[in-house]
Amino acid sequence: MSIKITGFETHDVRFPTSLTGDGTDAMNTDCDYSSAYITLFTSSPSLQGHGMTFTIGRGNDIVCTTISQLASKLIDKDIESLFENMGQTWDWLNSDPQMRWIGPEKGVVHIALGAVGNAIWDLLARVRGKPLWKLIVDFTPEEFVKAAAWRYISDAITKEEALQMLREKEAGKKDREAKVREVGYPAYVTSAGWLGYTDEKVARLTKEALAAGFNHFKMKVGANVDDDLRRGTLIRSIIDDPQYATVKRDPGSKELEGKNAGPTGSVLMIDANQVWDVQQAIDYVKKLEPIKPWFIEEPTAPDDILGHAAIRKALKPHGIGVATGEHAHNRMVFKQLLQAQAIDVCQIDSCRLAGVSEVLSVLLMAAKFGVVVCPHAGGVGLCEYVIHLSLIDYIAVSGSMERNVLEYVDHLHEHFVTPCSINDKGRYNVPNNPNEGYSIEMREESIAEYEWPNGTYWTQRRGV
Amino acid sequence: MSIKITGFETHDVRFPTSLTGDGTDAMNTDCDYSSAYITLFTSSPSLQGHGMTFTIGRGNDIVCTTISQLASKLIDKDIESLFENMGQTWDWLNSDPQMRWIGPEKGVVHIALGAVGNAIWDLLARVRGKPLWKLIVDFTPEEFVKAAAWRYISDAITKEEALQMLREKEAGKKDREAKVREVGYPAYVTSAGWLGYTDEKVARLTKEALAAGFNHFKMKVGANVDDDLRRGTLIRSIIDDPQYATVKRDPGSKELEGKNAGPTGSVLMIDANQVWDVQQAIDYVKKLEPIKPWFIEEPTAPDDILGHAAIRKALKPHGIGVATGEHAHNRMVFKQLLQAQAIDVCQIDSCRLAGVSEVLSVLLMAAKFGVVVCPHAGGVGLCEYVIHLSLIDYIAVSGSMERNVLEYVDHLHEHFVTPCSINDKGRYNVPNNPNEGYSIEMREESIAEYEWPNGTYWTQRRGV
Repeated sequence: MSIKITGFETHDVRFPTSLTGDGTDAMNTDCDYSSAYITLFTSSPSLQGHGMTFTIGRGNDIVCTTISQLASKLIDKDIESLFENMGQTWDWLNSDPQMRWIGPEKGVVHIALGAVGNAIWDLLARVRGKPLWKLIVDFTPEEFVKAAAWRYISDAITKEEALQMLREKEAGKKDREAKVREVGYPAYVTSAGWLGYTDEKVARLTKEALAAGFNHFKMKVGANVDDDLRRGTLIRSIIDDPQYATVKRDPGSKELEGKNAGPTGSVLMIDANQVWDVQQAIDYVKKLEPIKPWFIEEPTAPDDILGHAAIRKALKPHGIGVATGEHAHNRMVFKQLLQAQAIDVCQIDSCRLAGVSEVLSVLLMAAKFGVVVCPHAGGVGLCEYVIHLSLIDYIAVSGSMERNVLEYVDHLHEHFVTPCSINDKGRYNVPNNPNEGYSIEMREESIAEYEWPNGTYWTQRRGV
Repeated sequence: MSIKITGFETHDVRFPTSLTGDGTDAMNTDCDYSSAYITLFTSSPSLQGHGMTFTIGRGNDIVCTTISQLASKLIDKDIESLFENMGQTWDWLNSDPQMRWIGPEKGVVHIALGAVGNAIWDLLARVRGKPLWKLIVDFTPEEFVKAAAWRYISDAITKEEALQMLREKEAGKKDREAKVREVGYPAYVTSAGWLGYTDEKVARLTKEALAAGFNHFKMKVGANVDDDLRRGTLIRSIIDDPQYATVKRDPGSKELEGKNAGPTGSVLMIDANQVWDVQQAIDYVKKLEPIKPWFIEEPTAPDDILGHAAIRKALKPHGIGVATGEHAHNRMVFKQLLQAQAIDVCQIDSCRLAGVSEVLSVLLMAAKFGVVVCPHAGGVGLCEYVIHLSLIDYIAVSGSMERNVLEYVDHLHEHFVTPCSINDKGRYNVPNNPNEGYSIEMREESIAEYEWPNGTYWTQRRGV
């Protein structure tokens, strides 16, 4: 008997992170990490699909409204007919001319499509009884290609090239899956380096992260160059000190090549969150050469492909790379970042891109251009999502893991039914519950508490 | 006594253009031309500011909600303090970190800011008792630069360069203003070439446009190459026939250089509305060489700067140029289109860019790079807006008019209090009412009739 989508509900869920200074950087000074959340209901009472997109507060209601308008197209659809060609399903959801006009493929409509697209993928994974990453790495190359988003990228990669690449990776998939199940997927920590923290807190958090096994650390920069140098020198002094690290790597190892690793194999990255014009970025980051960062993340406007290329070229002699992508709004932006040789590291986002189908296309392009993928995470729900994407990248697409690192921030995981987790070597564990889908189902109690504006937390705070 | 902004209201106004086939093209098949409209109220009862952004139907409510959230920041602000530095006012409206996240500077939040920003400019022009274009061309170079949006473009143009350019144009401003008041601003017609029209209707409308004085014509393409060739040959046969044209130009004149003008000086342009991948665009448009278009507009995804550059390079030997911009979502996209030499014609939009301040920056960049600006119009309200922008470009920025043409579509002007108009040479008249501001005030009766979903037109159509 066929199962149909019978309805959906959205939830505007906002966590009061602005109270603690978590998540502050040079651009985003006042963030309430928020989830524009959707549950798809089906004619099978026990079967639901969950998806969300991430915002930082105001405007989350606008995204929820947009999610509703996009999801209304799904009502009465047979789920197997949606699943049969997920790339085509994605194209169909993405191509409403009227909704397209207020994008197209960017901003509110695109991140809303991210939530809806991810909810359908979550549903598919649950129906097949596999976590999402496992569903996709078990695809044949033909199934993988059929599931991706192809419009506007054929000048960078064709379906035939993608098939060829995926076929070459078939033989090693089993071994890679076994390996990552055993050792976990490499992660890095951002939590230590927010601008809102005191030096003491930064030092304490850095030491804790080293003790937990991490060896890649990211620091926010861009408000004041002297402060950045001071904080960077502080972090470097700790991460380069052999007494603090529990997991050490040979700083000359192939995996750390070009990363400015210190004597214990620790790596520092810096993130400006788009605060500079192009020449400003170049001048500022050159001054941070003494703290030897691997890369500068988001040095300028995320739309500025040629600007990123100019910055990368200017910083290369200083041994500093360029990373971006968390605000790169669709596969065409990534295509050009790769074509223009503008980035060393490709930081896809699981819901700024419009969900899994578009992410698969970007993974394929990055692999073709030989650029490592280190997804953006943090916020709320993003870590739950991205471990799936990195596993797909490693097992089925790029075949490499040790040059990559996946962002990890230890915030708000307790609100998810199947939260992500980190092992004692500072690496992500592999999600392994056959019923967890895309791992993004939020706890009902959390929704009830933090729904805006009438969840119990918010009404109590207002004294209602 | 200081005047404050005391409140605002928004209106979701939708015109049922999908019933007639007006506005159909290869991408946008079902358009209800719509206005997300805002009126700012002030402490002076007779003083209001009006603004809008254009959409094609569904989602217009989402834009209205976003306009409200952005405009709420204006409540209780003293209008003269907003006017004092309009560039800074624009930056302030554009930089709310939480709203920025769901853009940034693109999609719903940016077109909503277009409506709000334009409403403030409308208010300023009314307070100063000049139509908007006249207010701005009377600015000193310093005032002009202060009014523009500067973040993220200093690698393409600095404020100092802009000042220098504007100073060089000071001496001729009076003469140019007098000239355009006398002869009008050149226009072109799109109304004849929609995909939804029959050949008979296309032929009739083309002859009518020639009789009205027009000599630039745009045709929609991209659904079927044989149809496009047939329709293009039909249009060419009419516009090249001396019996139909009332205004003729020397086809070898400087103004028509590079435009593939026919024997009567008529020019054909073609518009694909983003339907192709890059190589597809090149292959398709080459086949249209026999109908000798001046340019292909929107050949591929509007975000694809490098794609447009590749298409332009490939079509150059065939004598066909590239135009884009109506979906170029901010000044950084235009910056790169110019830097990459990706366009022959820069088609700014008056409300996809976030209003006048950002438009001024793009006009300056286009002039610096020597690319003609031919704003996008049509839809609803866009013609009312863009004549102001082209007058600013001609009188104060580029100093040239005869290579430019401004889109004109004869739809829906009757809904505006001060509609734009065309003279008997097929050129825009200069708006000249000291109280018309940015000419975008909609008639109250029109709002009452077409407000969605409860205006009288819509309730009657639903049989309520």
